[in-house]
Amino acid sequence: MSESSIRFEDVLSAVEVIRGVAHRTPVVTCRTLDDLAGRRLFFKAENLQKVGAFKFRGAFNAVSRLSDEAAAAGVVTHSSGNHAQALALAARMRGIPAFIVMPRTASPVKQAAVRDYGAEVVLCEPTLAARESTAAEVQQRTGATFIHPYDHPHIIAGQGTATLELVEQVDELGVSLSAVIAPVGGGGLLSGTTIAAHGLNRGLRVFAAEPVGADDAARSKAAGEFVPQTSPNTIADGLLTSLGQLTWPIIRDQVEQIITVSDEQIVAAMRLLWERAKLLIEPSSAVVLAAVLDDRFRELPDIDSVGLILSGGNVNLDKLPW
Amino acid sequence: MSESSIRFEDVLSAVEVIRGVAHRTPVVTCRTLDDLAGRRLFFKAENLQKVGAFKFRGAFNAVSRLSDEAAAAGVVTHSSGNHAQALALAARMRGIPAFIVMPRTASPVKQAAVRDYGAEVVLCEPTLAARESTAAEVQQRTGATFIHPYDHPHIIAGQGTATLELVEQVDELGVSLSAVIAPVGGGGLLSGTTIAAHGLNRGLRVFAAEPVGADDAARSKAAGEFVPQTSPNTIADGLLTSLGQLTWPIIRDQVEQIITVSDEQIVAAMRLLWERAKLLIEPSSAVVLAAVLDDRFRELPDIDSVGLILSGGNVNLDKLPW
Repeated sequence: MSESSIRFEDVLSAVEVIRGVAHRTPVVTCRTLDDLAGRRLFFKAENLQKVGAFKFRGAFNAVSRLSDEAAAAGVVTHSSGNHAQALALAARMRGIPAFIVMPRTASPVKQAAVRDYGAEVVLCEPTLAARESTAAEVQQRTGATFIHPYDHPHIIAGQGTATLELVEQVDELGVSLSAVIAPVGGGGLLSGTTIAAHGLNRGLRVFAAEPVGADDAARSKAAGEFVPQTSPNTIADGLLTSLGQLTWPIIRDQVEQIITVSDEQIVAAMRLLWERAKLLIEPSSAVVLAAVLDDRFRELPDIDSVGLILSGGNVNLDKLPW
Repeated sequence: MSESSIRFEDVLSAVEVIRGVAHRTPVVTCRTLDDLAGRRLFFKAENLQKVGAFKFRGAFNAVSRLSDEAAAAGVVTHSSGNHAQALALAARMRGIPAFIVMPRTASPVKQAAVRDYGAEVVLCEPTLAARESTAAEVQQRTGATFIHPYDHPHIIAGQGTATLELVEQVDELGVSLSAVIAPVGGGGLLSGTTIAAHGLNRGLRVFAAEPVGADDAARSKAAGEFVPQTSPNTIADGLLTSLGQLTWPIIRDQVEQIITVSDEQIVAAMRLLWERAKLLIEPSSAVVLAAVLDDRFRELPDIDSVGLILSGGNVNLDKLPW
């Protein structure tokens, strides 16, 4: 499927699918953070989404679009993060099986969370090759449909719904956003954000924030060609993966700039969001504030107001990074 | 001033005063917590209010109602908690001085937070007598108006606005609340909640949650007469004070039941709200969930849905209670 197969209409259609099911998460503002950024900031609090992350939007959209026949055999994915829980919940809501391939090294807490949503956990060796081959085996054995965590058109369209809501909610406050910024890992959220933003308004500028320790998107963009992520090393554990075949061209062509930030900046931004805005978010969410507070972003002209997508709030409360 | 001087109309009037100034904080739901409670729960997230607590509502209402002449001399209060910051901010927004009497033992962080809002901190000995006499001295010296943290009609009316919003927001979700529950310390929030709830609907049941270690309201209610709080001992440090002359009669006559909870229950509820609902709230907020999960509340008949007022989110992130 080519990139052009994901259109603004697909995001609008996803809005209808998730209406009344996904939370219309609040937009939060904080004067202290505005002052630090030198601009008005509007935080889309996807940490308050079902399963604690935007991932529910895409997963529910994808599961809803399966034919009854396909749905009966269930869905399968490989993920140890928020997509796993999101797909498990979406499958349970439709009353179909979900098979989640996770590395043996995934924490018992994460495995339990997925089982709590009624999914079957299938363990494998902690390599990408093992994850993919195990998922393929499950697919063959069960007939389940594979739902990729990010490189899937219904996932991307679903993630875009957060940006439609954000722009609408900020409009209700009487403000017209100059720019939006989303974190980038595999690029599902960022691609959906881009399609939604530019579908609404060609002039709405789209930025991404990425950890220095997993900067494949920034390097791909600089090189003008896809560069895979190898040996990522960052506290933002939701942003470790490479871009995908669908997400890379969208990001290449439509994202204005990718701002990379250090783990030190990420932890400082996370603490600001907790302490000043009372937003309990994970490090992968904090990258967007870290980027907006970075000089490279601060020096950009003609940006009065920024919408920041806070991707999720799944953190280990016994191991906070300060 | 007698209790009858605070009417539902005063809350409606406060709504107009704070409109566009205080945040209309979101109402958050969480299926996991619904399942634990056996009912639908709707959390009014006042941790996302300005200064991180509902206190801004009352403080802004009280400061707004001063005549220009009275306002010019400023406002004074004694508080080392959220009311101090709320009054400081409300005063700054009106461009008038604020004098905040705090015990010498108040943490430097809390003193700095109040000074950051432009207020003058006046230190005193850490006794109630010293706080009151110091505030009286400041009042005499400066002509500032004393704004009591809770036993003040404009404060009570302002705090009631949270409940008006809550009921309206839950209505928008197609649900008619059976009951509301608020924490009780001095009783300003609880009194405002009661007046707002019963002004909207006489049949809306009002409950309170209180720490066992500061249970003067429950004891007052049981005795049928005002019992002051002595030697409080609880992690819920926003709920240590005695009821007031205005708040006690309202609570005596109109609150159905006060549920007391242990610090252990409070910490468990706080962790649930952080971990499952991603709501960064302080222990004084967690008491309401602790009460709703307690058997004494669970066994109450005819309550399908409960609105819970989460009072604030000002916690020391370096000293979490788990």
